[in-house]
Amino acid sequence: MASHNQPNLRIPGPVPLPDDVLAVAGSQMINHRGTEYAEMLDQMSSNLKTVFMTNNDVYFITASGTGAMEAAVVNTISPGDKVLSIIIGVFGERFAEIAEAYGADVDRLNFELGNAADLDAVRENIRKNPHIKAVIFTHNESSTGVSNPLKELCTVIHEESDALILVDAVSSAGGVPIAVDAWGVDVVATASQKSWVSPPGIAMITFSKKAWAAYAKSTMPKYYLDVQQYEDYLKIGQPPFTPCLPAMFTLKIALQSMVDEGIENVFQRHHEIAEHTRKGASSIGLDLLPDPKFASNTVTAIRLPDDVDGKKFLSNVNDNFNVVLGGGQKSLTGKIFRIGHMGWVEKSHIDEALNAASETLNRMTS
Amino acid sequence: MASHNQPNLRIPGPVPLPDDVLAVAGSQMINHRGTEYAEMLDQMSSNLKTVFMTNNDVYFITASGTGAMEAAVVNTISPGDKVLSIIIGVFGERFAEIAEAYGADVDRLNFELGNAADLDAVRENIRKNPHIKAVIFTHNESSTGVSNPLKELCTVIHEESDALILVDAVSSAGGVPIAVDAWGVDVVATASQKSWVSPPGIAMITFSKKAWAAYAKSTMPKYYLDVQQYEDYLKIGQPPFTPCLPAMFTLKIALQSMVDEGIENVFQRHHEIAEHTRKGASSIGLDLLPDPKFASNTVTAIRLPDDVDGKKFLSNVNDNFNVVLGGGQKSLTGKIFRIGHMGWVEKSHIDEALNAASETLNRMTS
Repeated sequence: MASHNQPNLRIPGPVPLPDDVLAVAGSQMINHRGTEYAEMLDQMSSNLKTVFMTNNDVYFITASGTGAMEAAVVNTISPGDKVLSIIIGVFGERFAEIAEAYGADVDRLNFELGNAADLDAVRENIRKNPHIKAVIFTHNESSTGVSNPLKELCTVIHEESDALILVDAVSSAGGVPIAVDAWGVDVVATASQKSWVSPPGIAMITFSKKAWAAYAKSTMPKYYLDVQQYEDYLKIGQPPFTPCLPAMFTLKIALQSMVDEGIENVFQRHHEIAEHTRKGASSIGLDLLPDPKFASNTVTAIRLPDDVDGKKFLSNVNDNFNVVLGGGQKSLTGKIFRIGHMGWVEKSHIDEALNAASETLNRMTS
Repeated sequence: MASHNQPNLRIPGPVPLPDDVLAVAGSQMINHRGTEYAEMLDQMSSNLKTVFMTNNDVYFITASGTGAMEAAVVNTISPGDKVLSIIIGVFGERFAEIAEAYGADVDRLNFELGNAADLDAVRENIRKNPHIKAVIFTHNESSTGVSNPLKELCTVIHEESDALILVDAVSSAGGVPIAVDAWGVDVVATASQKSWVSPPGIAMITFSKKAWAAYAKSTMPKYYLDVQQYEDYLKIGQPPFTPCLPAMFTLKIALQSMVDEGIENVFQRHHEIAEHTRKGASSIGLDLLPDPKFASNTVTAIRLPDDVDGKKFLSNVNDNFNVVLGGGQKSLTGKIFRIGHMGWVEKSHIDEALNAASETLNRMTS
């Protein structure tokens, strides 16, 4: 990227895109009701199912990841339904807010920032509240660099209830394994600008048979995010509404390339670059925010020394090294910085970012 | 476009894009919470207000035009509110369906396909229903190539009621004058892939003071489309949710270029190419679907001879001339074809499309 004098964009999405993907994003428009689109949609649906290890339905919606989370809520629950919201950061809180905005009776189970959800606490909560319609939570909390143990959470929820499992996987899907069918996830919500090596614009969801059964009973108002519209049009190879073509074009390429690479290899690659980032942080004397056991494979949250002005740190890194790091959000503002490593990322990108952080801290504390 | 062997895409959106715009769509990602984005958003908001001749708030939402229409509904009305829906085609019907999906008490005033709304009928309807909360309708019905007399409709509605005016201007805005303040339009909904010379991905709305007063009383559930979120983040130069950057990048260029050209010149250019299309249709012996008085300046709907198989006609035009025309929708399927002429369009594009239509009809009827 340096050759283009572009900054090293290391926020946790939108991810930087290699030149060949950018060229695809700049492709000419096509008729979204023609055969070329139908073939593209068919191929993309098939490949997305492969990545999610599922036979469930999958849909592409022109929206951000929040739109995908809202689609999960409005298509499965009804006003007044009891929803358990497991929260480990700002995106978990957002999911709860969406469900509340639509009139769900939301019970929040909060965990300290930097921690993953505790399985025993989740189990205990569900036992006390047997009539939960849905459990909603964020898989990978990009605000804290923490990955929830998704498989284990699904096991506990299934053991203790019949609740739907709706997962915000915006910043994990595509970079981290999510075995939708094996783990019994009813709706996974994600978005194109994360591990999918695409620009923002397309939200993606998976939708299980159990989710469809819930849909039939849902009285939630909806139109643009109504999965039935996407399903009806999918049958004729079309989108119900004009889709964000640049992100569809790049997702087509990205999904095919993930399947060609082998999804286990994609996940392994994300694991390795995350390990490289974590080791690099340690080698410059910095601590991770989370317990390494739950450290995310798509974004690393690193504690700043107490005496460093976090805002100034970020702008110094940007101004002096042309590296864009993520800051802390809400109560973590100024206390951490974050390095995104999802999608297309090379070790040199990470080394450059860590070197910029290290040099900046040296200058600020000397 | 022929030089790239690209089809001459003459559907009423997504519109074909010139090479320089495509290059911008393929620009590298940026930090949507950084200064570059803030400056872009500020410039775009200012220019969009110029195009809409308004001091009202304007917002950019990652969604299709239908998302913009839904935003108009969910941010202003409440379940049970009486809504008058003026319908002259499929998009007017869609607007009614959205309001109904959210529990509005919708009264439909339908006009025959190919006609514009009749002002006296609208006046009479409002007089009979004094407690209308909002009047909703499509400005330019792209399914029939008809433009409603927006200014005159607003006058009638204001004379007879205090109702909000919510306008689907998806296929008109940017190509046809909409004097939001002078005419008193409360919400205008549009989308990037039409006259704005951009790919699909960004919906745009204007939002009046009266709409904000209605917002304060609206009990409609909303989150992703909640204008308050967009307003709160606008104040810090950010989007509430990760935006479709390729369409934002191109819209930035397109809006600036419209303002630089002068919006009256942009509208005049659309008028001239529409006139050229209408005259061209006449010169090959074909009739318009609508009364020429209400013929759209962004899309022309042309009647097919009775004995011609409309589906075959479209595929022949495509296969033999590499021209993609729009077909008829719903009850007009097979009876009309449509030529889009919004955004970047040259007379040669129209001539090529009409020549393809004429030659195809000659071959099919000889």
